Amino acid sequence: MRIYFDNASTTPLLPEVVETMHELMEINYGNPSSIHLHGRQARSSIEAARKTIANVINASIGEVFFTSCATETHNFFLTKAVEEMGRKVIIYSAIEHHCIFHTAEHLKEVHGIETIVIPVDHKGHLDYGVLENALKATGTSAVVSIMHGNNEIGVINDLKRISHLCRENGALFHCDTVQTIGKLPIDVQEVDVDCIAGSAHKFFGPKGIGFMYLKNDIKLSPIFHGGSQERNMRSGTENIYGICGMAKALEMAHQEMSERKDKVTKIKQHFINRLQELEDIKINGSEDGLYHILNVSFPAGPKADLIMFNLDIMGISASSGSACSSGIELDSHVLQAIGHPAGRKAVRFSFSHFNTIEEVDHTIEQLKTITPALV
Amino acid sequence: MRIYFDNASTTPLLPEVVETMHELMEINYGNPSSIHLHGRQARSSIEAARKTIANVINASIGEVFFTSCATETHNFFLTKAVEEMGRKVIIYSAIEHHCIFHTAEHLKEVHGIETIVIPVDHKGHLDYGVLENALKATGTSAVVSIMHGNNEIGVINDLKRISHLCRENGALFHCDTVQTIGKLPIDVQEVDVDCIAGSAHKFFGPKGIGFMYLKNDIKLSPIFHGGSQERNMRSGTENIYGICGMAKALEMAHQEMSERKDKVTKIKQHFINRLQELEDIKINGSEDGLYHILNVSFPAGPKADLIMFNLDIMGISASSGSACSSGIELDSHVLQAIGHPAGRKAVRFSFSHFNTIEEVDHTIEQLKTITPALV
Repeated sequence: MRIYFDNASTTPLLPEVVETMHELMEINYGNPSSIHLHGRQARSSIEAARKTIANVINASIGEVFFTSCATETHNFFLTKAVEEMGRKVIIYSAIEHHCIFHTAEHLKEVHGIETIVIPVDHKGHLDYGVLENALKATGTSAVVSIMHGNNEIGVINDLKRISHLCRENGALFHCDTVQTIGKLPIDVQEVDVDCIAGSAHKFFGPKGIGFMYLKNDIKLSPIFHGGSQERNMRSGTENIYGICGMAKALEMAHQEMSERKDKVTKIKQHFINRLQELEDIKINGSEDGLYHILNVSFPAGPKADLIMFNLDIMGISASSGSACSSGIELDSHVLQAIGHPAGRKAVRFSFSHFNTIEEVDHTIEQLKTITPALV
Repeated sequence: MRIYFDNASTTPLLPEVVETMHELMEINYGNPSSIHLHGRQARSSIEAARKTIANVINASIGEVFFTSCATETHNFFLTKAVEEMGRKVIIYSAIEHHCIFHTAEHLKEVHGIETIVIPVDHKGHLDYGVLENALKATGTSAVVSIMHGNNEIGVINDLKRISHLCRENGALFHCDTVQTIGKLPIDVQEVDVDCIAGSAHKFFGPKGIGFMYLKNDIKLSPIFHGGSQERNMRSGTENIYGICGMAKALEMAHQEMSERKDKVTKIKQHFINRLQELEDIKINGSEDGLYHILNVSFPAGPKADLIMFNLDIMGISASSGSACSSGIELDSHVLQAIGHPAGRKAVRFSFSHFNTIEEVDHTIEQLKTITPALV
């Protein structure tokens, strides 16, 4: 029995997605830029996929661009905000993905811009007061990059509130929606945002493909220069199989959203209930966070350091909330931001509708052997 | 009967590549950055693919990076040459891919660098004398970007000679090897080059994946900032299926290189022979060019403008050497550079080992109905 509880990191492909891609790989090999039949077939598949994705997020077709991953989108938008839209301050939360703060730090180094980090409380909730003050002080010189749902502890931010604050002060609003696309409804007509990013492999689609929503009044120079693909926003022959696989995955995620949510919520709740059988367990993050993420804090002790290692040996794939560099294991920046006590060990279990209650029970029984149990 | 003679534009996937990718899509879905079994399996597949590619071009493993396409690689290297390696002049040939000169033009606009375009003769051969003089005048301030084999007319450049000229004068040498990877042997120990790019879909691999060879003494800031994948050169979760599909395709291209070359050369030669049955046909490019590319110049006349349209209707996918914008059809920059006469119509037929002599015969018979025939 091998258990995969690392669905916030990446997901298996849906059989329907594999089938879609497999079929395309066998028959649809034209270059979408070619005007002959082979090319037109490829073009038609890609544009159908674009329409599917635009519909799901309620965008217009012209606002959806295909990228190779969300990291590409995040890098692109933040860089262009500074280099082409005159933004001199990047405001982001203390629990953003590496991709956001590494890009911001790079832009600070190269262009001398300012960065402002908005703190979160011990559950990971954003300090909206600090954000508001920062926005009032920086106004139209700012670009805000705040995520929808956090990848480590699952806390969900109030996008409408953030958007309102941004608009009131003239800031650009970029949102990392990687953990929430396909999990929560996202409507770009309801939340006024300049750019969001999706990554197919987080919602049971293929790796190596993502999409960018870019509000239609924003005009930027291309991500890559060349053959003028993606309406000259991103040159390079399109990844047909990836694009169509992503659209299939997103369409299914949208159709099955509430059904999957119910199933995963039950699995997570069962996990939380059974964690009571272990000694001194705490849950990191907020109770009303993302339904597929459960970040568990285990007590300090000689067994704690080996939890990840032992889980893997026992056939359970989960994720550590820590980064090991040069032998010293440190809590991630997210855990540090919420004040997770040093010595305790955080493990993120993240679920999908492919998981079962039996897998949870098995995991709890295994955990009892490697961390202090009450019963 | 549908005939695909557009293999320089993109290629069908080899059945073995589809099989490799299909299998991985079903079982190998971990995140290569995860330390658990699922992650290690993914990591292991990716690193095996890197080794395969490094072996084929005789590079060290640490010099091979995965990108989403060759366009990404070209944009990256030229941009970094200017922004991080202090190069103030980009020297490129008049028949480079769009991707090179659009990137160069963008860098000229943004950074005020100089561009020098090296002319070619009427067959597409580079003017090495002009290149040498340009290099002597610019020295260590230059980066040269000259392709290995041209995508439209198939002319092959002498990489050793170009490399020698670059090294003698302290210029960086970037080479677009997109049309030649998998077709001609490329050995980075034999040709001293700083960067080359491969794109899997040109050698019967998947779209949306490529690789960059970057000489190991060159240190640059990342393509994308984030999770530090690709030894921090390109963040973003790796496209496992694409990477492994590409390695499989390149491995097979390498193993079957001479066999495929023989077959394709015969097909091309048969096409050239049978073209004698048509009136006033000329071949664009050099006789010793790439064996899979045949650029045919048809006589001017009322039928000429409709050749592409008619070929498509007759079930033949080929490529036009012209670009249509706002209703005025103009020869491509490559055809203009070799002085292709206005009015005549150039069509590129590009072959693969999947094509047959029968397909050539059928195409010639069809051509006789849409262009003046002698017999």
